[in-house]
Amino acid sequence: MGGDYAPEATVLGAIEAYKVLSADQKLVLIGDKDQTISILHENNFSPDNFDFVHTTEVIGMGEHPTKAVVQKPNSSISVGFKLLKEGSSGAMLVGAMFSVKAIPGVLRPAITSVMPKLEEGLGILVDVGANADCKPEYLVQFGVFGSLFAQYVYNIPNPRVALVNIGEEEEKGNLLCQAAYPLMKESGQFNFVGNAEGRDLFSDLADVFVCDGFTGNVMLKFAESFYVISRKKKIKDDFFDKFNYEQYGGSPILGVNAPVVVGHGISNAEAIKNMVVLCRDMVESDLTEKIKLAFQ
Amino acid sequence: MGGDYAPEATVLGAIEAYKVLSADQKLVLIGDKDQTISILHENNFSPDNFDFVHTTEVIGMGEHPTKAVVQKPNSSISVGFKLLKEGSSGAMLVGAMFSVKAIPGVLRPAITSVMPKLEEGLGILVDVGANADCKPEYLVQFGVFGSLFAQYVYNIPNPRVALVNIGEEEEKGNLLCQAAYPLMKESGQFNFVGNAEGRDLFSDLADVFVCDGFTGNVMLKFAESFYVISRKKKIKDDFFDKFNYEQYGGSPILGVNAPVVVGHGISNAEAIKNMVVLCRDMVESDLTEKIKLAFQ
Repeated sequence: MGGDYAPEATVLGAIEAYKVLSADQKLVLIGDKDQTISILHENNFSPDNFDFVHTTEVIGMGEHPTKAVVQKPNSSISVGFKLLKEGSSGAMLVGAMFSVKAIPGVLRPAITSVMPKLEEGLGILVDVGANADCKPEYLVQFGVFGSLFAQYVYNIPNPRVALVNIGEEEEKGNLLCQAAYPLMKESGQFNFVGNAEGRDLFSDLADVFVCDGFTGNVMLKFAESFYVISRKKKIKDDFFDKFNYEQYGGSPILGVNAPVVVGHGISNAEAIKNMVVLCRDMVESDLTEKIKLAFQ
Repeated sequence: MGGDYAPEATVLGAIEAYKVLSADQKLVLIGDKDQTISILHENNFSPDNFDFVHTTEVIGMGEHPTKAVVQKPNSSISVGFKLLKEGSSGAMLVGAMFSVKAIPGVLRPAITSVMPKLEEGLGILVDVGANADCKPEYLVQFGVFGSLFAQYVYNIPNPRVALVNIGEEEEKGNLLCQAAYPLMKESGQFNFVGNAEGRDLFSDLADVFVCDGFTGNVMLKFAESFYVISRKKKIKDDFFDKFNYEQYGGSPILGVNAPVVVGHGISNAEAIKNMVVLCRDMVESDLTEKIKLAFQ
């Protein structure tokens, strides 16, 4: 209910997602049921294809995430998390932490996003905003999340994990990276390939790029602006088109007890559909269980 | 003597710079004099147009910056800094700090670089790598450097200064930004316009973008990779061409007692020429004195 184009875009995305899901996979639409059904009718799509949970509250962009989740128990986000356990990305994260909760042993869940590679395939960036300040140990765990995500959801064997840094050599970087590098090198939990610089993010140097959530968020938004620019300049190029967030749909929160994907506020129907598909892939690959096993 | 294409590219750049300097502006070429003069002869250019200081040592990329500057007093970098007071960017910074020294009152000098704007003009990014870890007070001073640099070297009146952050609101960000924001807002030393996100760096939101040197370095190298990509993909576009570092030449170190510009290791003749021109503009605008006044 909370996106810029909600609930229309969300319902249209659900229709598109329905078409690619198998018969035993059921989407539950959480939100204003009357509005939702009228959008479905407008699009000649039977409401029988979905399950519904009616909600009456909406969390807006400007609201304080923690307060909003507590004070609006009947918002679509709050209700959704309750269902998942048995709207704004801040509220999504709070919801994930309070309802679904971190996996035992996980110090901090992280948000991940994908970056296109210049040649082919994609790179996975962790964290892109959940943890603005990190301890070195968090970055090691982000490496575990990213490696398992790459391996099980994107089928990349033995994923290469790099640390985003400002030099190639081990001793380079800020205090965080200087402390994280030896921990990542010695962790034995993933295939660590050393440092990656800003210029390496589109290269085939690594499959997973680990950084604190401040750096990751700045880079992700910076990269998105290139897509906007290439559109404005009418540059048609496969590589630039891959920056279209709609293709990926959303950003998974890794390290919590259930698959959670955060969507862009400006998500359109295609983005919603692709988010649902990504969720399905996370469920089918049993990613949550793989992460739980890694922290046992 | 230390660049990838030195000393050829440096000498060719000096020839190009000579052509745009006025008669009372003299370039001093510091390095192997025999090699330099033979390159000048090969290009039918009279050595009388330059002054020369012969040096016998070269600092390589892999050397430890502090040790190299001390142990190779007859390298072109060491000699150059000695001259400035009456190779590798690490050694440049060490040279600037030990020979030219920080301006009294300056907590940490910073390296700056320019970013093209999508519409027109350019943005100034401070710091892009001198200070991987920053205290909030450093960021306030970076705002002063950037504002004076924008005003006096690029003739931007009352430059708008923004803090690179991961949200628009004052309270957003990592601990560094949360502490720096109120200090920048209340400093009264520049026109503070609030937070800028990764997507705003090419926009006209601000003229100066302040961040810690880790974030700035990652972003700068990330942006440079877009230029490389646009070249590989044969995209001809004015905006992407502006990412060509050769156009800007180098990155000034601000907050030291003399104009210092760090060049890329891969600088070609055009980059060297543009570095000389930028140095001239810094000298003619009396930037160093303006910064000294701001810290009195």
